[in-house]
Amino acid sequence: KRTGFPEVIFGEGKTAEHLLGIFERLMHHHKKVLATRVDKQKAAYLLEHLETKYSDETFHYHKDARTFHWVTRDYKEEWKDGFIAVVCAGTSDFPVAEEAAITAEIMGNRVQKMYDIGVAGIHRLLDKVEQIEQANAIIVVAGMEGALASVMGGLVSKPVVAVPTSVGYGASMNGIAALLSMLSSCASGVSVVNIDNGFGAGYYAATLTHTIDRAVKKALLEKRD
Amino acid sequence: KRTGFPEVIFGEGKTAEHLLGIFERLMHHHKKVLATRVDKQKAAYLLEHLETKYSDETFHYHKDARTFHWVTRDYKEEWKDGFIAVVCAGTSDFPVAEEAAITAEIMGNRVQKMYDIGVAGIHRLLDKVEQIEQANAIIVVAGMEGALASVMGGLVSKPVVAVPTSVGYGASMNGIAALLSMLSSCASGVSVVNIDNGFGAGYYAATLTHTIDRAVKKALLEKRD
Amino acid sequence: KRTGFPEVIFGEGKTAEHLLGIFERLMHHHKKVLATRVDKQKAAYLLEHLETKYSDETFHYHKDARTFHWVTRDYKEEWKDGFIAVVCAGTSDFPVAEEAAITAEIMGNRVQKMYDIGVAGIHRLLDKVEQIEQANAIIVVAGMEGALASVMGGLVSKPVVAVPTSVGYGASMNGIAALLSMLSSCASGVSVVNIDNGFGAGYYAATLTHTIDRAVKKALLEKRD
Amino acid sequence: KRTGFPEVIFGEGKTAEHLLGIFERLMHHHKKVLATRVDKQKAAYLLEHLETKYSDETFHYHKDARTFHWVTRDYKEEWKDGFIAVVCAGTSDFPVAEEAAITAEIMGNRVQKMYDIGVAGIHRLLDKVEQIEQANAIIVVAGMEGALASVMGGLVSKPVVAVPTSVGYGASMNGIAALLSMLSSCASGVSVVNIDNGFGAGYYAATLTHTIDRAVKKALLEKRD
Amino acid sequence: KRTGFPEVIFGEGKTAEHLLGIFERLMHHHKKVLATRVDKQKAAYLLEHLETKYSDETFHYHKDARTFHWVTRDYKEEWKDGFIAVVCAGTSDFPVAEEAAITAEIMGNRVQKMYDIGVAGIHRLLDKVEQIEQANAIIVVAGMEGALASVMGGLVSKPVVAVPTSVGYGASMNGIAALLSMLSSCASGVSVVNIDNGFGAGYYAATLTHTIDRAVKKALLEKRD
Amino acid sequence: KRTGFPEVIFGEGKTAEHLLGIFERLMHHHKKVLATRVDKQKAAYLLEHLETKYSDETFHYHKDARTFHWVTRDYKEEWKDGFIAVVCAGTSDFPVAEEAAITAEIMGNRVQKMYDIGVAGIHRLLDKVEQIEQANAIIVVAGMEGALASVMGGLVSKPVVAVPTSVGYGASMNGIAALLSMLSSCASGVSVVNIDNGFGAGYYAATLTHTIDRAVKKALLEKRD
Amino acid sequence: KRTGFPEVIFGEGKTAEHLLGIFERLMHHHKKVLATRVDKQKAAYLLEHLETKYSDETFHYHKDARTFHWVTRDYKEEWKDGFIAVVCAGTSDFPVAEEAAITAEIMGNRVQKMYDIGVAGIHRLLDKVEQIEQANAIIVVAGMEGALASVMGGLVSKPVVAVPTSVGYGASMNGIAALLSMLSSCASGVSVVNIDNGFGAGYYAATLTHTIDRAVKKALLEKRD
Amino acid sequence: KRTGFPEVIFGEGKTAEHLLGIFERLMHHHKKVLATRVDKQKAAYLLEHLETKYSDETFHYHKDARTFHWVTRDYKEEWKDGFIAVVCAGTSDFPVAEEAAITAEIMGNRVQKMYDIGVAGIHRLLDKVEQIEQANAIIVVAGMEGALASVMGGLVSKPVVAVPTSVGYGASMNGIAALLSMLSSCASGVSVVNIDNGFGAGYYAATLTHTIDRAVKKALLEKRD
Ligand SMILES: Nc1ncnc2c1ncn2[C@@H]1O[C@H](COP(=O)(O)O)[C@@H](O)[C@H]1O
Ligand SMILES: Nc1ncnc2c1ncn2[C@@H]1O[C@H](COP(=O)(O)O)[C@@H](O)[C@H]1O
Ligand SMILES: Nc1ncnc2c1ncn2[C@@H]1O[C@H](COP(=O)(O)O)[C@@H](O)[C@H]1O
Ligand SMILES: Nc1ncnc2c1ncn2[C@@H]1O[C@H](COP(=O)(O)O)[C@@H](O)[C@H]1O
Ligand SMILES: [Mg+2]
Ligand SMILES: [Mg+2]
Ligand SMILES: [Mg+2]
Ligand SMILES: [Mg+2]
Ligand SMILES: [Mg+2]
Ligand SMILES: [Mg+2]
Ligand SMILES: [Mg+2]
Ligand SMILES: [Mg+2]
Repeated sequence: KRTGFPEVIFGEGKTAEHLLGIFERLMHHHKKVLATRVDKQKAAYLLEHLETKYSDETFHYHKDARTFHWVTRDYKEEWKDGFIAVVCAGTSDFPVAEEAAITAEIMGNRVQKMYDIGVAGIHRLLDKVEQIEQANAIIVVAGMEGALASVMGGLVSKPVVAVPTSVGYGASMNGIAALLSMLSSCASGVSVVNIDNGFGAGYYAATLTHTIDRAVKKALLEKRD
Repeated sequence: KRTGFPEVIFGEGKTAEHLLGIFERLMHHHKKVLATRVDKQKAAYLLEHLETKYSDETFHYHKDARTFHWVTRDYKEEWKDGFIAVVCAGTSDFPVAEEAAITAEIMGNRVQKMYDIGVAGIHRLLDKVEQIEQANAIIVVAGMEGALASVMGGLVSKPVVAVPTSVGYGASMNGIAALLSMLSSCASGVSVVNIDNGFGAGYYAATLTHTIDRAVKKALLEKRD
Repeated sequence: KRTGFPEVIFGEGKTAEHLLGIFERLMHHHKKVLATRVDKQKAAYLLEHLETKYSDETFHYHKDARTFHWVTRDYKEEWKDGFIAVVCAGTSDFPVAEEAAITAEIMGNRVQKMYDIGVAGIHRLLDKVEQIEQANAIIVVAGMEGALASVMGGLVSKPVVAVPTSVGYGASMNGIAALLSMLSSCASGVSVVNIDNGFGAGYYAATLTHTIDRAVKKALLEKRD
Repeated sequence: KRTGFPEVIFGEGKTAEHLLGIFERLMHHHKKVLATRVDKQKAAYLLEHLETKYSDETFHYHKDARTFHWVTRDYKEEWKDGFIAVVCAGTSDFPVAEEAAITAEIMGNRVQKMYDIGVAGIHRLLDKVEQIEQANAIIVVAGMEGALASVMGGLVSKPVVAVPTSVGYGASMNGIAALLSMLSSCASGVSVVNIDNGFGAGYYAATLTHTIDRAVKKALLEKRD
Repeated sequence: KRTGFPEVIFGEGKTAEHLLGIFERLMHHHKKVLATRVDKQKAAYLLEHLETKYSDETFHYHKDARTFHWVTRDYKEEWKDGFIAVVCAGTSDFPVAEEAAITAEIMGNRVQKMYDIGVAGIHRLLDKVEQIEQANAIIVVAGMEGALASVMGGLVSKPVVAVPTSVGYGASMNGIAALLSMLSSCASGVSVVNIDNGFGAGYYAATLTHTIDRAVKKALLEKRD
Repeated sequence: KRTGFPEVIFGEGKTAEHLLGIFERLMHHHKKVLATRVDKQKAAYLLEHLETKYSDETFHYHKDARTFHWVTRDYKEEWKDGFIAVVCAGTSDFPVAEEAAITAEIMGNRVQKMYDIGVAGIHRLLDKVEQIEQANAIIVVAGMEGALASVMGGLVSKPVVAVPTSVGYGASMNGIAALLSMLSSCASGVSVVNIDNGFGAGYYAATLTHTIDRAVKKALLEKRD
Repeated sequence: KRTGFPEVIFGEGKTAEHLLGIFERLMHHHKKVLATRVDKQKAAYLLEHLETKYSDETFHYHKDARTFHWVTRDYKEEWKDGFIAVVCAGTSDFPVAEEAAITAEIMGNRVQKMYDIGVAGIHRLLDKVEQIEQANAIIVVAGMEGALASVMGGLVSKPVVAVPTSVGYGASMNGIAALLSMLSSCASGVSVVNIDNGFGAGYYAATLTHTIDRAVKKALLEKRD
Repeated sequence: KRTGFPEVIFGEGKTAEHLLGIFERLMHHHKKVLATRVDKQKAAYLLEHLETKYSDETFHYHKDARTFHWVTRDYKEEWKDGFIAVVCAGTSDFPVAEEAAITAEIMGNRVQKMYDIGVAGIHRLLDKVEQIEQANAIIVVAGMEGALASVMGGLVSKPVVAVPTSVGYGASMNGIAALLSMLSSCASGVSVVNIDNGFGAGYYAATLTHTIDRAVKKALLEKRD
């Protein structure tokens, strides 16, 4: 029904066999299928079985993001205008950021990744603000104290989707510190998704661009008339 | 700098005198000023002083939403296309919903309020889904267990901004139950702001429509060329 | 003393040898014995020893539900009237739902399982409401935000026993989000058992049908006189 | 639709005027209306207005339970068979127990109150077990450490609905200690509702007796044929 | 200095080599040494090295209690009058109860163990109350909802030392439910030690008997004079 | 049954009338009655009514400790040997310490109060250690970080009963910091009661001296024979 | 003993009379006395009594900081070299910042206040970084998400003392969000004191300058020799 | 920019290859590189590759502290005056204390380690107070109840940096008890860093000595002139 929205499987806690079963069934009714939180073992199993059986099709596994997806061979992506910015501070938050980016891409969005922007080195962030402001939506991925979301919210006028991560230890409480921190400052255009939920952020940003898309098409149509 | 974005004052914990001082100062540099969390006493004080001094201007106080605002007399609102839906279950969540609605309106958005939609009577919600789907953004305000946000997220393709409220008792823990609940289901297009943060939701929805607005204008411009 | 109520062993944290000892001892004094939370290794050990020793008896292990039970060979189940509905959204909550179902069955109840009903696809739920309403008790198993319990409570007039599960991550806090959520909405006929406590829910539902059973028998007896 | 189920208003956080409005509106469509959490001031206001306007009708306010209700003059209660037991330890938990009892009664149930039964004096409890076992449902209201629910669950075979209360201080954390305690022992026929939710427990017990009622009627009907 | 009090080593988180070093050093200055939380591997290592080196001495390892201790060969225990009761419900709390019992014994106390007493079968408890009341101190070890401590406190006049255990799941939160529950009811002669702290309870009970011992000796001395 | 143990009423949350009723009833069956958590208004009410009616009797109200008690006129206290030490750091913890002291005294114990001993000035504590060691039980009352209990536990061999208080702010979380802190160090002879539970500590210490008393009497008796 | 360190009284929870008593007693043995958390009523009481009795002395009350202090008339402050920076974002955190500033000043430090620096307007902060870097210690006072401490820590090389405040609502949990956030980022030269503990931060900064002072004096002395 | 401050890598959650890459890159631009939280496997990998490639350089791995660092061959450390005291109670907190000590040393500070000082044996602490008071900063590392920080704060006038550790079980909640405890008493010159953050404490103490250093140099310079 929702054009361009793939079916998505949550891979955690499912066996490889089970995952394969669901994946295949969805392939028969959809043009794109995405599975998240797929570890290496399960991915190998999926690849082995799916590539053998559907030798004309291509399957993609990203080991950092732990995503596994397929887009039907003859699918012609209708790229949405503009881009989504995915911002994080580096190494540790990287997998969550990648999950967000891949999700957004599969949903027809161009993504600009900025993975070296943290609160510790605020100048790198300031250098890129102008570029980030051009995005249709900004995904900020941050662990520890999650201050990056607040700082970003104060610098741009575009909607910020904040993803707290479980990176950190002790008082960061597996992401709770970042989560509470991001929620406590969401006055200026910041909303929040679950801890480590890169997928949710990518999907959310895509609902935004999907809405823009509709609005633009409608406006152009009206214009034409 | 950000056209149409008002300056906003957080009224809680400020004295009436202090509030007046900030409000007046902002009036001199902006066309719109909004103060949130203004109780009746403070509002009376503000009205008395401001209406006397600026007799040509109109000031608005909403006692449920506890918002106080001013839009300069000669301001011609440039209404954004489409509308924002503000949805809640009724009586208790009403003040937070109103705060969201007024914030969105001051930022140039038309708002459709649906204040009798709860999970207990799911049919009322189903009857309105088609209409809600037309919105550019959907603000869902819900206390207690906050299930309305999840249900809504499953029914529409537009971005849902969920506001947990502190309505409830015991295990609802002043909004924590609703907050965790909303975060735990944000996969399908739901993001969350702070407990009782109607303002934040209204503002966030407005950043979405602001982004749409820009995109539409750019597209029309390009078309014209 | 309580006819039809089996003796139940909590298998977690007990060694296989210990489990075997208790199981055998109970077999000598009861007609049914149930052990929950029995992993594959322990089950294999139990099976090996019990089947050898009691070659006339049948032992049942359900690897998803992790239940191990025995009903004496010549036992003639006196099935209670009506049925208990066990409802969940799918894959991840499946083991807990199975534990509930098996417990209820061992206690002499017919069970109707509906394992594809979630809040995300509310229409599947609505399609089955009429059938669910026929149950004597409804067990709702749900993780993440646990909204299914609230929605169900609003749709039926029969007692709902809600089981939050530890399925989810981050803000779902190993089942705490679902638990608080279910407790916060239990006004309309919903009560709650511990996180992942499928056994408790099955047992509880059985105390309900046991009570009905007694009442019906008493009424028929009185009628006869 | 659900015969004998009254409409219920949650009085907390509503103004007296608002409450009156809802109450009157419900009176026009129903035979019974119940409002919970109505403090003395609001009750006085309701009484004054309702008794004046509907001079033929009787309105009931229980100041401990904080319930306010009305049953239409010509209503002939169809009392359900058997009774519901409401058990608590005394003074402090009394208001919550009363809320449960009144709710159950309004829904057509006879209630037996046992308000002097606590864990500290276990013998009083043992003396009454036989009588309690006769109930169709047992509501246990307990604050502090909530041990009464566990002990009761071990002594009876009928469904226990446990209501933790916010009575206590320090480590009892406004009812959280009792809540967790009750949930942790719900294996043997105990389920739990929200802290201080006497209404919820009374309502839940009534869904049980309602289910029994249906079953008995159906059995008698079948018998007759 | 404190006669009869052994030196005690907390074994968790120490390497076997390290443990051995400390143990040996203490042996040279004391007549008794106790190490708690010693797993099987470490115990084997200790035994191997200590038995070889000190072939005249005996070393004791209890694998359930995970205690390792030594009392010098020629030590003549001066047993304190009376006994300490150690009570628990069974299997799961067994290791913690054993740690308490062994600690108390090493400190010169006779211990009576009652390991089949739980709240579920309250009659077994009542049968033994008279005997328990004879103890100088009563250690109650209980997990899940910890109700046994409250019930015991109400039945006896001797000091109860309650040990919550981490046994349970979900809402029992690794012992937090039992801990809060025990603290919330400690009015009538119950005090609490840390979760799983069998050692602490045994030691505490021994400080009680040590105090009694002193008082008795002093009284007899005064008498004699 | 328990000689010298008074009946105790928990005054919080009871109305003055209610309190009076219970107090009087207990007076008729006991020689001592104690009510805790009695505020000034309730105390005045009790005094007025009781002194009028029982003009021969004396009633005692301690406004800091908020205790109200009565010991029958002709009661001859049988003081237990030795004393109980009640230790705290000063001003803020004073009321809780007083509640403990008065409770212990009413139960027939001599109390030595040391109310100027805190961790900040460790030397005052060291000066008194020898004297404290003479006590039969040591009650340590401490708020904020509760370190006094740990330090005391390390210095004496007698049982320490620790009472965390709700004194402090922020991270002391209404006594939770002190509570957790005291529990975390209870290895060396420290056990804990609920936050602000001076009564519980006094009562607990009295169960210790009661046990000593019995032991001494028994020893003397045996000696005599 | 510690030259220049005043005696400090924690005013919360003490009566005015009690406060006066302690204040006067300290005046007799010290040259400076500071009381924190003194509300207006208590301050008025103190002023009235102290100014009458000690008419030659001057007493200072700061109603925002809620501090009351006295420095003996003939006291000649020996100002320490350099300055302490006290930074906050504005209105709401103002009282805590003032408490910090006054404490530092009374301990002989010059203070530079920068009260309009927040994360929302990062440029104001950047403009002042160079000046802030000159400080001997930097006190950062911040509520809500507390991100200012992290950002500051990344920009300067001097020790940052972070004070989380209870400003905020919902997920900011009375300062817990800011506290966890500040702790989670304290790697780069940030340490934390209790929520709202302006006094503690001021005092801590003063122990730093006191240490510098000693070091400088020692170095100059050695130089001279 | 900040002379003598090394670049620091957080090793946890990074692969050995990744770590090596960052380490080498930093070596090219700095004179010192420190990696924390490096386990044995990663250290072996780093050593093997770095020693082969940079055979003239020396690399240091501390297996307890889990630190890996390099200081360029020709680097001449400019040791700061005075010393930093690192204090802990022993075995279990040892690794965190070592991380603090090594961090401080790499930043040019002499460190005095006192690793046998705990609250249980307060006399050892008192014996060393005079020596500790000579330090420029005092790092106190403590788990369980963290009382050592409070006691130290009361005994010395120099800034105390407290590091709670995750050592303990049950109510110590992985360091939360120690953390809250330390925060609750930080009035008298104690500030706190994250749980187990030895690195943070060492770094913080070094910012203090760095500030002293500057002040002393400035003073001497001014003197000279
Ligand atoms: N004391 C109570 N606790 C929890 N829920 C209640 C209570 N009283 C009424 N309710 C529920 O609240 C609903 C009405 O809420 P409202 O529309 O806010 O009056 C009813 O359908 C009841 O199920
Ligand atoms: N301050 C107190 N804290 C805790 N428990 C108390 C306190 N005062 C009295 N109690 C207990 O409360 C019981 C009486 O409770 P109640 O029947 O509500 O008056 C007594 O048996 C005491 O054990
Ligand atoms: N605002 C404050 N927050 C925390 N501690 C304080 C505060 N004011 C004073 N103190 C400390 O409290 C101690 C005095 O406590 P007290 O004896 O209760 O007045 C002083 O030594 C200070 O260290
Ligand atoms: N053990 C540690 N705990 C907290 N922060 C650390 C630790 N080790 C290094 N860091 C900080 O982490 C930063 C580097 O993080 P990363 O880029 O992930 O290696 C450094 O600037 C340090 O401030
Ligand atoms: Mg913004
Ligand atoms: Mg959706
Ligand atoms: Mg229902
Ligand atoms: Mg039962
Ligand atoms: Mg007792
Ligand atoms: Mg001791
Ligand atoms: Mg810095
Ligand atoms: Mg100090």
